[in-house]
This record gives sequence, structure tokens and C-alpha cells, in this order.
Amino acid sequence: MRTTATVGQSDEAEGPGTPSTEADESWQIRYTAADLDRLAETESLFALANGWLGWRGCLDEGEPYGMPGSYLNGFYEQRKLSFPEDAYAYPEISDTVVSVPNAALIRLWVDGEPLDVRTGTLRTHERILDLRAGVVRRETEWISPGGRGVRIRSVRLVSLHRRPIGAVRYEVEPLDATVHVRVCSDLLANERLPERADDPRAATVITDPLTAERRRSDGLDGVLVHRTEHSGQRVAVAVAHLVDAPPTVAADVDCTPDRLRLTLTGPLRSGERLRLTKFAAHECTPVDGMGPDELADLVVAEAAAARADGFGTLLHTQRATLDVTWRTAELELDGDLELQLATRFALFHLMQAGRADGDRTIPAKGLTGNGYDGHVLWDTESYVLPVLTYLNPPLARSALRWRHAHLPEARERAVELRLAGAAFPWRTIGGRECSAYWPAGTAALHVNADIADAVLRYVAATGDDAFLAETGLDLLVETARLWHRYGHRSETGSFHIHGVTGPDEYTGLVNDNVFTNLMARRNLRGAADAVERHPDRAARLDVDEAEVAAWRAAADAMFVPYDRERGVHQQSSGFTSGPEWDFENTSEDDYPLLLHYPYLELYRKQVVKQADLVLAMLRCPGEFTADEKARNVAYYEARTVRDSSLSAGPQAVLAAEVGHLDLAYDLFAESVLQDLRDLGDKTADGLHLASLAGSWLALVQGFGGMRDDRGILSFAPRLPSRLHRLAFSLLWHGHRLRVTLTRDEARYELPDADAATTVEVWHDGERLRVTGDTPVVRPMPAVPQPGPEPLFPPGRRPARRESH
Amino acid sequence: MRTTATVGQSDEAEGPGTPSTEADESWQIRYTAADLDRLAETESLFALANGWLGWRGCLDEGEPYGMPGSYLNGFYEQRKLSFPEDAYAYPEISDTVVSVPNAALIRLWVDGEPLDVRTGTLRTHERILDLRAGVVRRETEWISPGGRGVRIRSVRLVSLHRRPIGAVRYEVEPLDATVHVRVCSDLLANERLPERADDPRAATVITDPLTAERRRSDGLDGVLVHRTEHSGQRVAVAVAHLVDAPPTVAADVDCTPDRLRLTLTGPLRSGERLRLTKFAAHECTPVDGMGPDELADLVVAEAAAARADGFGTLLHTQRATLDVTWRTAELELDGDLELQLATRFALFHLMQAGRADGDRTIPAKGLTGNGYDGHVLWDTESYVLPVLTYLNPPLARSALRWRHAHLPEARERAVELRLAGAAFPWRTIGGRECSAYWPAGTAALHVNADIADAVLRYVAATGDDAFLAETGLDLLVETARLWHRYGHRSETGSFHIHGVTGPDEYTGLVNDNVFTNLMARRNLRGAADAVERHPDRAARLDVDEAEVAAWRAAADAMFVPYDRERGVHQQSSGFTSGPEWDFENTSEDDYPLLLHYPYLELYRKQVVKQADLVLAMLRCPGEFTADEKARNVAYYEARTVRDSSLSAGPQAVLAAEVGHLDLAYDLFAESVLQDLRDLGDKTADGLHLASLAGSWLALVQGFGGMRDDRGILSFAPRLPSRLHRLAFSLLWHGHRLRVTLTRDEARYELPDADAATTVEVWHDGERLRVTGDTPVVRPMPAVPQPGPEPLFPPGRRPARRESH
Repeated sequence: MRTTATVGQSDEAEGPGTPSTEADESWQIRYTAADLDRLAETESLFALANGWLGWRGCLDEGEPYGMPGSYLNGFYEQRKLSFPEDAYAYPEISDTVVSVPNAALIRLWVDGEPLDVRTGTLRTHERILDLRAGVVRRETEWISPGGRGVRIRSVRLVSLHRRPIGAVRYEVEPLDATVHVRVCSDLLANERLPERADDPRAATVITDPLTAERRRSDGLDGVLVHRTEHSGQRVAVAVAHLVDAPPTVAADVDCTPDRLRLTLTGPLRSGERLRLTKFAAHECTPVDGMGPDELADLVVAEAAAARADGFGTLLHTQRATLDVTWRTAELELDGDLELQLATRFALFHLMQAGRADGDRTIPAKGLTGNGYDGHVLWDTESYVLPVLTYLNPPLARSALRWRHAHLPEARERAVELRLAGAAFPWRTIGGRECSAYWPAGTAALHVNADIADAVLRYVAATGDDAFLAETGLDLLVETARLWHRYGHRSETGSFHIHGVTGPDEYTGLVNDNVFTNLMARRNLRGAADAVERHPDRAARLDVDEAEVAAWRAAADAMFVPYDRERGVHQQSSGFTSGPEWDFENTSEDDYPLLLHYPYLELYRKQVVKQADLVLAMLRCPGEFTADEKARNVAYYEARTVRDSSLSAGPQAVLAAEVGHLDLAYDLFAESVLQDLRDLGDKTADGLHLASLAGSWLALVQGFGGMRDDRGILSFAPRLPSRLHRLAFSLLWHGHRLRVTLTRDEARYELPDADAATTVEVWHDGERLRVTGDTPVVRPMPAVPQPGPEPLFPPGRRPARRESH
Repeated sequence: MRTTATVGQSDEAEGPGTPSTEADESWQIRYTAADLDRLAETESLFALANGWLGWRGCLDEGEPYGMPGSYLNGFYEQRKLSFPEDAYAYPEISDTVVSVPNAALIRLWVDGEPLDVRTGTLRTHERILDLRAGVVRRETEWISPGGRGVRIRSVRLVSLHRRPIGAVRYEVEPLDATVHVRVCSDLLANERLPERADDPRAATVITDPLTAERRRSDGLDGVLVHRTEHSGQRVAVAVAHLVDAPPTVAADVDCTPDRLRLTLTGPLRSGERLRLTKFAAHECTPVDGMGPDELADLVVAEAAAARADGFGTLLHTQRATLDVTWRTAELELDGDLELQLATRFALFHLMQAGRADGDRTIPAKGLTGNGYDGHVLWDTESYVLPVLTYLNPPLARSALRWRHAHLPEARERAVELRLAGAAFPWRTIGGRECSAYWPAGTAALHVNADIADAVLRYVAATGDDAFLAETGLDLLVETARLWHRYGHRSETGSFHIHGVTGPDEYTGLVNDNVFTNLMARRNLRGAADAVERHPDRAARLDVDEAEVAAWRAAADAMFVPYDRERGVHQQSSGFTSGPEWDFENTSEDDYPLLLHYPYLELYRKQVVKQADLVLAMLRCPGEFTADEKARNVAYYEARTVRDSSLSAGPQAVLAAEVGHLDLAYDLFAESVLQDLRDLGDKTADGLHLASLAGSWLALVQGFGGMRDDRGILSFAPRLPSRLHRLAFSLLWHGHRLRVTLTRDEARYELPDADAATTVEVWHDGERLRVTGDTPVVRPMPAVPQPGPEPLFPPGRRPARRESH
């Protein structure tokens, strides 16, 4: 791993009012010149975002780049889908994230030679992502091919406080002799993207997606307004500059339809410094919303306001905002420094991916890249929200409100599919189905239950009854209607759900997928409960008692396929009698299997891409006995190849539950290092937020043994041998519960609460009442003695975590 | 139906040596001016072909047209397939039939006005497809908008005797006053095609597929040579003309890269006639085969040779060839004149679709249109060859030799799919998989067993052991290898085939489809038998005894899913416990279902597009008891919507077998009228050869009760109430067996054989020996008393055949 400590380097460039940055290696991701061959990856790792605006961590000077990207949440273009063999209800249009004009660029020429880390001599080069300050710092000492030396320092942030604002402070000074510099601060639309490989998981490249509508400059500042051709969106980005430079430096602004450029030119003598600070404001609207001039005025005002506050204030507020965030999110993991840092990295990216205000969700890659075309998938509700619900509930609420805002499209889709209720899209940005392969898209109906599940967990953890009435109920009812229509009764009365694809994408179009059926049962019952809680609201949806009774009856009769002979659940009906995969004759180069085998082979065989039945045991733990869990884990681990980054987290939780703690730890490590080590070779396209979220699940649900499926909060903690101590917080009905686990004891406390505050939790089956003044301490429960560790397909066990 | 008798019209234009055409309405398809609004349909119905060259039945003057087309068997262009979501082993290229230069065109101007049946006054207009003469005759009397009248007569044929040759004789004469005519005989490449609707079953239009390589003219004759860009094929068409006109008519030839035109201009006085006869020769080769000049020389010589023989000889030979064909193919059906004619129409098109020489197959539409992109599908082996095997075995042999010629591509495909043996394509022209939807393409592995089945039936019916050794064995062995690799053993030892799609395309990706499993069993056993018969040849394929034993064991252990509770077979595992289709809420406008429901709904429900289990009972009758057949028919008819034209024929056979003779007759009628009545609204794209073949199966296997699956020929005849008599012939080991059924008796005879010739047949379980001198007559067996007629989905019973 490339992250190492920064060597006590204080940032002398901090302005007044900025808290000093402690040199704490456990809060900093640091990459150096040695990592320049992995640019696209580091751009994802160093991406900054605030849930609205995302800037990939490109170099200030824009080149070399892996894949430039600056995104606004929900801003996309559309493209036509054309199928060689079309069929009814195939989506005709797909959404694709496109970059908004990039305001992060600051290019430099030294005596006429462009600063480019691939040329000249790179004396030093380091970039740090500071997880507490919420900034990316860069320092580079570079000798041009002509022998002129400069030092560049920059600090970049995307403001967690001021939604539209990204800002950069950029400094350049001669290393010794006078240099003539040209500094160009660019705002650039339609930036060129590299052509991408022919991988189904990569993004579509749309060339020149933005059409210029307005451009204006005023002094050192300016604004560009563009629109998209097909999706009907308008975007405006304004930049406001502050320049601190010797008087011999001249400034000039040039504006073309796709580029606004401030150019500073002049000599810099030894001891002199040029400092350029740029404040960029971003907004987008539907084209039929705010007009271009109005929108331009808005972002100009926002950029000016940020400048008026000053960069120091932005830094200060950034840190202060993160301090609040980390108060809950902070997770101490004693015994493995690398994974301690990696966990913080994961949580940082989860926290900055969402927004508390409004109704924006979190795409699979957040705002860190254009992988999966920037689409939102079930990752959000199934991996990210289960974390945010406990660490930052307003972010979860916003994401669910986004689903609610797109209920009309989901209802229309259900009508198109000739179903009932709402059919949420498998992949989308704008709300309509964009999946171009129905067996792993439309047929993955479980996304509807995943959304319902996220609603139920959010409401259970927060007690946010107003949300349930205003937002959650609609989602629960319409998804329940889908299941009730889609399923059918057998002659013996059991309720079956045929013709779906579960989480495991190597097993498509099956009957009675256990995960889907159990989640549908939760969905149906959750909807029934919600209707009974808010009957007036439900009446507006035309729900009557008979409908609720039918949901409950279907849920009660839900079929769960079980193989009595093998004593394991069938991931779907008949799964365990399918042909086995020939792992003996599968080489390392054959992974990921989807790139080397046809669906024809994958679908019919007992090979599992990712946790499916295991995920069912995580989401619906009460549906399985302890023995069943142990047998199921053994059976399915032996057939799971983990070709999906979604898999390791849930596998870790279940491995921990059945007592394989070292294995759980290795799976946790894989999950949390997914991007820092680029384990899937796809980090270039953006971070795997679900995998990062899975690492929190591995720790809190795995080693903490936290469960919440019955509306109560319970723990069954157990520490793997590598950890001496694990401490984490989570919010339960607004109260921060701190849980500290050591080898000997588990401690539950409410550090922020008064004596009158009580939270009820369960510890190893014992009900505890934790109050503000009294922590409760209990001995660590005995861990079940597991059998031998599950077998994995050859070569597919996660790497054994060695000491670091 | 539009076919009515021609009124004793003798063709006074016949040359010497041409047999006179009897005015027999039961051998002529006649369309008149009233049918001009259905041009594209009639172009398919009037298409002429000889298995190598196919001319759609366009008007001589080319316009108006529905869809022009002149095809050579195996001549196609390629296009790139681009998938919005790609996956491993998706085909990258698809073959699409394209027209060769069209030599059938003869345009006419009368006093400067183009003959166009949409303008002026059409006094009379009729076109006749003469099923015995093998020609299309046309007669039109037209008054131009300017008031000038002409009579046009033409005769067109595609020579069954001279492979490359199509010919037209065209006559024009004034109706009364002198007219100035211009007659243009065109050879036209890259003819414009209409844009097609957005239907997955329609063809892809490639604009200007041909690139000109050579053009030459010589006197009144000429030749064009073109090539395709991607498929690497070269095509040459030469025309040779004969002109018989008053001396005042002048001739001129003009040649551009895409058009060779002979123009005749001059006055025609009352009583004068201009007669133009055109002989066109067609060849195509791979580009790396014969060079363009060489190919041009070849077709020029072929056209000249045809001209040297003369049009009269062509007509004569055409009739003589057909007389031989009809001697076996003729089928007498007393009691329904319309269906008698329709049956002859069906058999005519089947006979002219194939070639006895070489290794050409028969695409789904023959050479009558570009539907399904001109692809070859399982239709050939499963519907067309079971007829040709008995009526014209060399045509069946050629088609199987074509499969053998493409064994290399099928082996490569198996490797790509990571399977063994050979995986034949679901759709192709050039031999590689062109299906762009794998669940109904690649997964329909039964095409491999269908090919094997066609081999086995061909060998059984002909005794062509040389073919078995040289061609059939390879096909049997490599397909058997596929099944053995693809299937797997359950713990109880039964052999299962999971993850396939059977014939029913409304039920994709299933386990243990009965049709597939039983056909695979036939395939495995047939391969084992063939290996044991030709061990030397088999050794060259590295087959050893262990492999053969493994095939037999797999065949013996083949699993056949059966629902004991309902007493019916399951079309595939679990089929009968799937949700039922909601037929009550399905309106007439919802058919065909595939255009109004997503696969999501179709696949999981008990709705059947086409005979699947019913087809299994036809192909493998010995695998079912009579009771099972009756129950299965009742169960599956109630769920079969017949959205495929392949369905009615096999349904008719099984309906007849279980005793529903009126129903069988209605299904037969639907099958045989598929194109003449355009029941599927797709005849415009070409004829449904499989449906036409299905009508023969309905008669011979349904009412004749013929079965051949055990290598013996058996009959269990029964006549529906509408038929007084049914007589048909079929070839068994080279001997023509004539079967005549009346209400009272069944008569078996060998009309062409001497007394020493014996053929063994079974009649109603009794073994008969029929010799050349002694017909055998037996009473008609009693028909089983069926229960009530099966229910059909509402509105989906075939139309009841009323008296005609």
C-alpha cells in the first residue's frame, strides 16, 4: 500500500483562522511520484465531493490524466440504446453521467515550458488526502527541461458547508533563480475523455455533451452556462479569483464558449511567490427551470460569497463540519494501522458522497468517477444506506427521498411491465430503467425490496415517523403491490416468486430466490405495518384492509426453498441440484468469470458471483437457525468466487457470526482495501462505495454482531485475533451510542446524553438499558466453536491478513 | 382467398415444344388487380426459386413494389453487432441476406408514360403461379393516362434444370391504335429497399451492399460483377437477350456500374408485337476464389447457353422436371378444393427451395424474402427436412451436407462457449452464430439435436449408408459430445440438462426441457449406433468405446420431468407449478404476446408460444403412452397461444393422434394457409417454409398417422370428417410407396416397383409386406374416442374450417 506518513510537514500556507493540521499518519492518504503510473486510480482515491459536487483528484495542471471528471449529482446526458435484437419494454434511452465544466484546472508554464510531471525532473512530489481536514494537499518541486526549478503547493477542497463550492489555492515559487511563469486558471467544458476499454462495466463516452449557452467575464472572474442536448439540463459554473502576486505579474481573462481562462504572467524572483485562489460555484437545473442568465447570476453570486468569506474560512468550516461527522463516524481499530487508516478512508468517502438536504441519492461510484455510467444501483440501499442510517441519518433520508421523487417513473415502469405498484429501475440517474440486459436488470426485482428494507431500517433506527408518513409509506405500499402481483400461490398455498434474478449475477432468472423472497416478505409486512400506523395517508393510496390482509397472507405463506438432504437452503429453487462448476480446470486467468465464460455456463452451474444466500442471512437473520447459518456458509463459500466487490463485506459478517473470525477479518480487509489496493482493477472508474460500506458492516455487524432487523438494536460481539480493541459509535433514535469492545468486555455508553436518556440494547441475548450517566459493561460472550474453516474455490480465499 | 380459376386461357405465346398448360384451377394460384394493395405478400407467394437462385414475384416493371429481392443461396453481407451491454461470446458479426443484381426487370413506357398499374386504367390484370409448369404468367391490359392501350404478357421462370438461370419472356402489343413504346430490360444492382418497421423479426436493411468490380456489354447482352465489402463474396450476373420486334424498333445498350440496360424503342402498330426474351445467369464465389473476369466469362457463357437452347426448351424442361417431382410429391385431398390447392402451393415452394446437388441448405424463408435476415434456423432440420426426406431425399442430403461443411465453425463455437464437440448456430448464413439474444439463441441448444435427428431420419428413410459414414457420423458424434459435456448427473444418477431454452420461446432458460432431453437422448444413442456401424470412420474422430458407453449411459439415465399430481409431463422442470397466464385479461390486441409483454412476464408463466412438449410427442412418440399423450395435449393446448407459425402443424399431428380429428383439420388448415392468407401478417418478408412443411406433416403424420422414429415406417391412419379421401406418396429406401386412405380402407402400394420389390410397413400395429405387384388393403382402424376437445386460451382456437 502506498499510503505512508507525511513527515511532520506543517502547511505554512494556511491562512488565519485555519486549525493547524496535525501530522497524523492515521488520517492521511499519501501518494508520491512513485505512483504516477496509476493516475486514474489515484484520481478516484483523491476525489473530493459534498454529495452535490464531485471533483476527481486530477493533478492541478490537468495533464497527465487518467480520466478527468467533475460531476454534479443528477447531471447527465442521455443516449439512445439500440439492440441488435429488440424486445418489448427494453429501455430506449440510457442516462450517462457527464462532466460539468471543470473548474479545478490550474496550468503552469515555466519559462515557456508547461509543467508536466512526465518531463523535466521531479525533485519531490506528494499528494495527501487529509481525512480530517477534508482537503487534498499537493507539493511538487520540479525542474523544467530547461533547468528552471519551481515549487508548487496547492490545497483543494469541495466544500461540505457551501453546497455549490469547490475551491483551490495554488502557489508557485522559484526554487532558486528567477523564473518567468504563466499560470492559467481554467474553467473548461467538454474536456476530452480517454477512450475506454470494451468492458461492459465501463462507462459510455459521449463526446462534447455540453452546448454553450452563455459566457461572461467580469474582471478576473467569469461564468459559463451550458446545456445538454437530450436530457434537457442546464449547468452553470462561475469562478471567482483572488490573486496574490508580485506587481510585475499581469492578469488577463479570455473567454470562449467552452473555456474561461484567467492568465497570470510575469517573472518570479527567488523569495517571491504567486498565490492564486479560485472559488468555483456550480448549479444545474432542468432546462425548463431557471433561465441561463438567471442561473449565471446565481452561481456568480455564490462564487463571490465564497470568496468574500475567504479560503481560510472554507478550510476552517470544512474541518469543523468533519469534526462533527467524525464524532459519530470515528471507528477505532487497534492492532492494524493500515486497516485503521483504510477504514477512515472508507468512511470519509461514504460521508462526503451524500447530502443531508433535499432529495439526492448516491450513485454506485458516488461522485468519484463515471463507472457504471454514473448510475445508481441497489448498492445504495443495500450497502451504503445501512451505514449512513447509523452514522448520518439525514444522508440516508435524502437518498430515500430521491427514490420517492422518482416514484412516478417507477409506477409507469410497472404499468409498462404489465405489473402493479412500482418497479424501480435497476440502473438509472434520471429515474427510468437504463439497464440494457434484462435478465440481470429488470429481472433483479429485489431492488424494490431493498428500497423498502432501507426505509424500514431508517425508520427503526431514527424513529422518524414523519418520514414514514410522508415518504416511506408510499415506497412501502407501491413495492408491496409489486410483489403481491408478481408472486403466485401454489396449490398447497405457499407463495412463490418465479422468474427473478437475485443478487448473484452468475445465476439469472430463477424461481424463489431466498434473498428475494425473504426481502419481499419484509417488504409486505413492513408495508402492512406502515399502513396500519398511518391509515389516513394509506387511504390516499387506495389501500384497504383486504389489500393489507392479502400482503400479510402472502408474507406468511412465502416459500423458502430448502434442501433437506444437504441441510442447506437453496439459493433459489433447485440450485443445489445444479451442475457444479469445474474449479479444477479454471485457471487464475479465467477470473472474473464473466469475462471468460458465457452466461450459458455461468447461469446453470453452482457458481456464485457474490453473497446472495449469505446476504439473505445478513439482512434477515431471524429466518435462519444458527446451525443453518453455519451449514449455509460452508456450502456457499465453497462456490462463491467473489467476482463482485459487493461480496466480501456480507461474507465477513456471516463468517464472524458462525465463528470464523480470522476468515472474517481477511474478508473485511479485502473489502476495505478494495480501492486503496485496486483489487478489482476498476478503481480508475471510481470508488466502490458499496465495498467501502461493506467494510463498516464487517466491523460493526460482523465483529460487533450488531443486528437491527427486528426494530431493536442487538449486539453479539466477538473480536478476531488481530484486533485488541474495536470502538465505534452509532446513532439510535438520535442518541449516539458508543460501543467499545476489547478481548474481555463490551462497553455500551451514551457519551453525549444526560442521565435521563435511556437507550435499550441487547447484548448476547440480554436486554440492557444504557443511560447517559452509566455505561454498561458486560463480558464478551463466548464465540461458537466453528467447524473447520469453509473451503473456497481454489485460489479464491481472500488473502490472509499478515501483520502490518 | 384470392386464388380462383383461370378461365381456360391458353398461352398462345408458348413456343414450339412447350407442353400446353391445362386450365386446372387446382394447380394455379391467381391474383388479379384487386390484390395490388398486398404487393409485398404476393411477391413472396409468386417467388420462384431453384434452391440456388430466388426471384421474388415482383411486377416485371419493378414498380410499384413491396420489397424487391433476388437472392443467391449463401450470398450475404455482414454487419457489426453492437450491444448496449456486451458479454462474453456474444456474436460480433451478423450475416444478412442481400439481393444480387436483379435481372427480372423489364420496364415499359407507352408514348412517354411509364407503365404503372397505379396510373391510367387497368382494364385487366392477372398473375398466375402455375404449380405444374413452374412459371409465373402475367397478363395486363392497360390504358395509359394519355389514352393509349397496350396488352402485356410475360412468362417468368427460375430454371429447375439450369441452376444459374432465370428467364423472362415479355410481350407487348397495342390494344388498338399505334403506340410508341420504350422497353427497358434492366440488370440492376443495389436496388433500393423500403425501410422496415421496428419488429425484431424483420430484416436489417443494408444500403448499397454491392461494390461494382466489372461491367461489360456485347451486342444486346452484358454482365455485371460486384462484390460485398465485409463478407468477401463476389457475384456476377449476365443477361442474354432475344428480341422479336418490327424492324422499326431500335435497340441500344447502356451500362453503368450498377445497371445494365437494353432499351428498345419504336412504334408498334395494331397487330404488331414486341417480344423480348431475357436469359440471366447468376454465380457467386468467395472473393478469394474465382477472379472477376473469370466469373464474368462463366455467367456470360451460361446465359448464352440458355439462350441457345431457347425459352421454349426452358419451359419444357421446367415442366418435365416438375412432373417428376410431383409424381412423388402429389397429394390428393378430396373434399376441400381450397386446401387441395394450398397443399400443392406448399409443396411447390418446399420443392423449389432446395437443391439436390452440392451442399446448400434452405433458409427459414427459402429464397422468397429477407425475413430473419435470410438466416437458416432449426426450421430446416425440424420441419422442412422431415418432408424432403420422403419426397426428395437429395434435397435433404444437400442441406445436411451444408451443416457438415460448417462443422468447423460449430466446433470453434463450442470451444468459445467452453463446451465440447460442436455447437451449431441458432441463426446463420455463413456458419457462425448470428443470434443477438442468447437466451433464445445460443441457449436453444436443441438445434444440435435437431440436426442429429434429421440425419437419423434421413438415413433410416433412405438407407444411405455412405452418407452416414461420410457426413452423418461426424454430425452425430460432435453433437453427442456437446450433450455429454453440457449435461450432468444428479446424486441419484439421472442425467440432467439444465439452462437451455426449448422450442417454446415464451419459456426461456429452463432445466430439463422434455423436448431437448428426449432429442438429446436420440442424439446420443444415434451417435453410438453410428459409431458402432462405422468404427473406422469414428476412430478418426478419436471416439473410443468408453466414450460411446458414456453416451449410452447418459441417454439411458436421461431425466424426463413428470408431474404425477396432474398426470402430465412438465414441459421443463417445474413448469406446471409456475403461475398461470391471465388469459381473462388478455385482449385480442395483446397478441402476439411478445410485442406486448416483457420476457419477465412471458418466461415465468405457463404460457406457451408454440408446440414444445407437443413437438416432443411428435418427434419421440415412443416415449409417451397414449394416455399421457391425451392428457398432455389437453394440458398444453390450453396454454398454447400459437404466436409462432411453427406450431399448428405439430399440434395438428398430436390432435389427430389423440382423436380430435376436426381440431386437427382446423390446425392443418391454419398451417397450410399461413401464407396464402397471411395469417401472421409477415408473409411480406418471405414464406414460412416450416409452416408449409408442417401442413404436410399434419396430413401424413396426422391423418396418415405415419411415424418413423424407430427406423421403421408405420401408419395409424384416420380421416377427419371433412375429407373423403387422402392419397400421398413417400419414398422409403428409394421405393415410392403410395398410401390411399378412404373412410373404409387404407391402401398401400408400390406403383413404380416390380414384383420382386418389397417394402415393409406397419398398419395400426400390424406388419405388412407391400410388393410391386400387390397393393395391400386394410380397413381403417378405429379412432380412439377422445374426451371433449381441449380448451384453448380464449380466442386462440384455430378457426373452424367451414365448407368451401
